[in-house]
Amino acid sequence: MPYIHLDEKLPGITGLLNYRLDTALPIRQLTHTLLRGESTLTEGERELIATVVSHGNDCYFCTAAHTAAADALLGESETSEQVKNDPDYAPVSVKMKFLLEIARKVQVSGKQVKPELVALAKEAGATDMEIHDTVLIAALFSLYNRYVDGLNSVTPSIESGFYDRLGGILKTSGYLPSENRYAALEIETVK
Amino acid sequence: MPYIHLDEKLPGITGLLNYRLDTALPIRQLTHTLLRGESTLTEGERELIATVVSHGNDCYFCTAAHTAAADALLGESETSEQVKNDPDYAPVSVKMKFLLEIARKVQVSGKQVKPELVALAKEAGATDMEIHDTVLIAALFSLYNRYVDGLNSVTPSIESGFYDRLGGILKTSGYLPSENRYAALEIETVK
Repeated sequence: MPYIHLDEKLPGITGLLNYRLDTALPIRQLTHTLLRGESTLTEGERELIATVVSHGNDCYFCTAAHTAAADALLGESETSEQVKNDPDYAPVSVKMKFLLEIARKVQVSGKQVKPELVALAKEAGATDMEIHDTVLIAALFSLYNRYVDGLNSVTPSIESGFYDRLGGILKTSGYLPSENRYAALEIETVK
Repeated sequence: MPYIHLDEKLPGITGLLNYRLDTALPIRQLTHTLLRGESTLTEGERELIATVVSHGNDCYFCTAAHTAAADALLGESETSEQVKNDPDYAPVSVKMKFLLEIARKVQVSGKQVKPELVALAKEAGATDMEIHDTVLIAALFSLYNRYVDGLNSVTPSIESGFYDRLGGILKTSGYLPSENRYAALEIETVK
């Protein structure tokens, strides 16, 4: 049971974003710009950053949702599985390994990001903007994970298929609000 | 030294918000709506939430900035000092004590917010919207603290007077961007 009255047809973050629309809009815009805007990181790579942070924060809803989005964008599910559970052997570039490690440090605390790790990321080809965006995506999901779990929002089971459907919406439509988006989510929500 | 190239005249969050304007705008809008928009919590109370979260994350820049903003709004500095260091005896309402405790839990993890604590806040008069906003403000400052420290932005000393000047700007103008705002910050920045 959520700690506040939310639309019961909208689990996880979706009910929270529907609860207060004037705060939801800039959250959605920030997320869309960072995860779907122009970038030298692919959309799949950026969803992997969201996934490892949500996994580190043990946020079931966010981890399942962004794993599904990453899998939909990458066309396979091994990479997301490995960055969560066996990062040293994950099939990502050396640059991405260091960026994902920066994201993991940010998840714990900004102070955990040490100059040596940033230097390794830069040696592997990471640009200032990629490092900036990695830190800000990791910080944004530190917000999302706390928002979702801090208000005890409803978490569908993985078996419901909810996250695969949500992942498909996130791949196709991104994060901006739209009437169709809400309709699709309500219909597809498992109570 | 920041990990990426930032305008050296703009320390802490100010240089980061100037680095990427398209992500800065929704961050500013979200903050302004939550901390300066219509609410049954005073602006000072909302700055105290930002302060205790930044203090819990040991983010020097954010703690000093929002302490200064809270002090400017409250007209005294004892309350901010006590909510940080001696919260049980802080001169705030019972409702605010529980909301600040919720914020402290969110700072650690959303999962730390237990139904018993939310029930105590509600018994003390907290509304659903106040609980929602407390969790979201605490989550937002979990983002800010990681953004500021994860990129190792420059931190002026408390003796420089920088934070008192910034606190005054936050009291008077809030969080939305403006040309004057940037000019004032550059002039007043201590290198």
